[in-house]
Amino acid sequence: MPPGQHMTAEEFRRHGRAVVDWIADYLERVDDLPVLAQVEPGEVRAQLPVHPPEDAEPFDEILADVDRVIVPGLTHWQSPSFFAYFPANTSGPSILGELLSAGLGVQGMLWATSPACTELETLVLDWMIELLALPDRFRSDGAGGGVLQDSASSATLCALLAARERVTGGSGDLPAAQLVVYATAEAHSSVEKAARIAGLGSAAVHLIPVDDNHAMRPEALDAALAEDVGAGRTPCLVVATVGTTGSNAVDPVAAIAEITARHGAWLHVDAAMSGIAALCEELRWLHDGLDRADSYCVNPHKWMLTNFDCDCFYVADREPLVRALSVLPEYLRNVASDSGAVLDYRDWQVPLGRRFRALKLWFVIRHYGGSGLRRHVREHVALAQELVDWVRADRDWELAAPAPLNLVCLRHRDGDGVTQQVLERLNASGAAYLTHTRLQGRYVLRVAIGGATTRREHVQRLWHLLRDTADAVSAESDR
Amino acid sequence: MPPGQHMTAEEFRRHGRAVVDWIADYLERVDDLPVLAQVEPGEVRAQLPVHPPEDAEPFDEILADVDRVIVPGLTHWQSPSFFAYFPANTSGPSILGELLSAGLGVQGMLWATSPACTELETLVLDWMIELLALPDRFRSDGAGGGVLQDSASSATLCALLAARERVTGGSGDLPAAQLVVYATAEAHSSVEKAARIAGLGSAAVHLIPVDDNHAMRPEALDAALAEDVGAGRTPCLVVATVGTTGSNAVDPVAAIAEITARHGAWLHVDAAMSGIAALCEELRWLHDGLDRADSYCVNPHKWMLTNFDCDCFYVADREPLVRALSVLPEYLRNVASDSGAVLDYRDWQVPLGRRFRALKLWFVIRHYGGSGLRRHVREHVALAQELVDWVRADRDWELAAPAPLNLVCLRHRDGDGVTQQVLERLNASGAAYLTHTRLQGRYVLRVAIGGATTRREHVQRLWHLLRDTADAVSAESDR
Repeated sequence: MPPGQHMTAEEFRRHGRAVVDWIADYLERVDDLPVLAQVEPGEVRAQLPVHPPEDAEPFDEILADVDRVIVPGLTHWQSPSFFAYFPANTSGPSILGELLSAGLGVQGMLWATSPACTELETLVLDWMIELLALPDRFRSDGAGGGVLQDSASSATLCALLAARERVTGGSGDLPAAQLVVYATAEAHSSVEKAARIAGLGSAAVHLIPVDDNHAMRPEALDAALAEDVGAGRTPCLVVATVGTTGSNAVDPVAAIAEITARHGAWLHVDAAMSGIAALCEELRWLHDGLDRADSYCVNPHKWMLTNFDCDCFYVADREPLVRALSVLPEYLRNVASDSGAVLDYRDWQVPLGRRFRALKLWFVIRHYGGSGLRRHVREHVALAQELVDWVRADRDWELAAPAPLNLVCLRHRDGDGVTQQVLERLNASGAAYLTHTRLQGRYVLRVAIGGATTRREHVQRLWHLLRDTADAVSAESDR
Repeated sequence: MPPGQHMTAEEFRRHGRAVVDWIADYLERVDDLPVLAQVEPGEVRAQLPVHPPEDAEPFDEILADVDRVIVPGLTHWQSPSFFAYFPANTSGPSILGELLSAGLGVQGMLWATSPACTELETLVLDWMIELLALPDRFRSDGAGGGVLQDSASSATLCALLAARERVTGGSGDLPAAQLVVYATAEAHSSVEKAARIAGLGSAAVHLIPVDDNHAMRPEALDAALAEDVGAGRTPCLVVATVGTTGSNAVDPVAAIAEITARHGAWLHVDAAMSGIAALCEELRWLHDGLDRADSYCVNPHKWMLTNFDCDCFYVADREPLVRALSVLPEYLRNVASDSGAVLDYRDWQVPLGRRFRALKLWFVIRHYGGSGLRRHVREHVALAQELVDWVRADRDWELAAPAPLNLVCLRHRDGDGVTQQVLERLNASGAAYLTHTRLQGRYVLRVAIGGATTRREHVQRLWHLLRDTADAVSAESDR
């Protein structure tokens, strides 16, 4: 077959096997690669042709360039020594679910555009309710329901749009400037981003003070709501975070729900980072009070072995969400939608088009089963708790926040300078990758333990590296 | 290995090959499947377990359920007889690029989170500028630049957010109700959706009348802008469409650009449906005047053999876009971002996280080369023009709109009732799948020709089916 044509079926089989083998090899050797990419800005691009090719190129050469140029420019999120940002673990069944979705190439924007795409999505979202013991009000057989979003940022935005719709009755009469959103300074940056996108502006986000554990103080929320109502402003959305990105703080949802309901605002619970912990019965205290929330999100693409993007977003009442986002042009009209007997997920999200994302989540749940998923979470939590014990017993390091789950925040007792230098040297070495935050003004290292192949040996090695690096830093500054 | 564990490398190779082979088989047999899913609401879900599995299940059983339950519930967008909505063609290199992206499992939210992910994206977006002969002002080495969005809906929203930022100077002082967005009634529904999301409301979208070809009338735009300015409203965004979804109408961008600039509004050109045609020199008239646009989008996931999601979004000045969307929490701070030497694409989009989408586009461009991509577009346009000739020569059917590219709109001369019945019967038969629109109040069939494997025989068969079905409908109504 001449170049520039479609791959034949036989070529696809051959190249497909090569890519599958490449991935298997990659995941086996990723532990040996520097975790943080060791490149300077512009270095990757400089190795690639400036102009697009006029003629077709052999697939083998493309794959060779992945090895030659791309891999050295990657930070390896699947490395067992990746402890940065958030767990972003993936797995064989998830990768193959994504592959199948790409191969089918169907659109799930309407039920009618591919019924199985919508119905499987509704099913796995109801399954997730059972697996995490979420409130029944989020089930699709009542007034609520779940949908897969690309990310928790989009879920937060959708929660705000639904809240705005409910509080304003859909009218544009109420100036956006009078609507208020509440969260702590530890809540995810997507809360402010959503407020800006929705036209409320950053100033509409009122930051509620936190307690010593970096969790929202409910009485401060109550006071802020009362003050705003007194000043003629309208409480629109309260975001409670179950496991903040910075330190895994858990806002007290039950108390927050009671206060939010009293003021008629919408309560969104953002459990993107940590809600997967509720697979395990002993960790379900995380969700106390969730039965009064209006919406909720959790990310299988963070801690449930599913590759990005896969955020589960639930609403207790889908009506304001759909009303906020539904625009029906003639070319999308169809009998099934008109009948009202089906869900059209395009009305539950910002984009119109949607991939068949439910496949990968279905593959993951079936491959592991509830028991396999729980074992995996328990292992990470146990590793984190072991690290907590080591830090507690150490004279040079200290915990910077409670570590209820799989994120450990720590700092060196000699101060921010040493802590920051340890981070920078360790990351530059490529041996492991951590990121930082600030808590109460202090520079803090974050160790997020959730890699699919992270084992005790990796956490132990990290701990030794932290201590050795700190010793080296201190020795130099003593000179 | 006990069930519920991770796949071993050997298991991944074995199951991965099975999925690759499954896809190769599927794409070979998809021509024989009913194009439109032949299921009733609830039918797919009813065949699957109500509760999630507690124990792990063998991968082979999962794949068997794909055949048993999922495939019969799909509408087959990759069928060569799929002529509905828009072309959504995919290809071998694209599928394998998506697979590789899933296998790598990296995040491209910041340059620092995986430099190659950002740098390859910037490169392929600059490549697309060359391939489509887009204005240099969209190149990343100046003040502008491109980014991959999930969809044109998100691109439209980002264009509106950047426009709002520029026109208001970022302040929330100007009530959103005074900002106006302009487009025709034929523009994509995402324009109204974006206005609602951004808090401007549906009423902020002023619909500009169209000419007989369903394209925007520039003098009407000029009048609308003048009227709004006179009434104290602020023109914010004008959306010109290059290839409307309904009928492939092409708004006159050059005239629109001149008028828009005069009023200080932002011009976004939405070429999601048809911009890929500009691969071919003889079709580049589509983009006349684009050198004065502030932003532009085109979808490789529609007509350039790249699976959803892959929308190329460009801005002439990235500063207002980034200013509108940038929120920087401490845990995302890093040396590279602080240096200003890199692009952080999280600030160019609604979500924070992002997949390595550039891989699949890079694979597609290299596999086909510029010459292969052009041949593919020319083939679809030639097939559509052949269908146009057949319709013109027919005494029962007529064209409902000009067909400059690969979308043919037609209707039966006996009226809307017959046209609609033909559509419904044909779709129900599973032999082909078409969707409809309304133009000037009349019911119209749309034939979008862009399947990766759609050949002359498929279009010819469709044309015979349309005529035969119409004859059957007419014969019954005569009885």
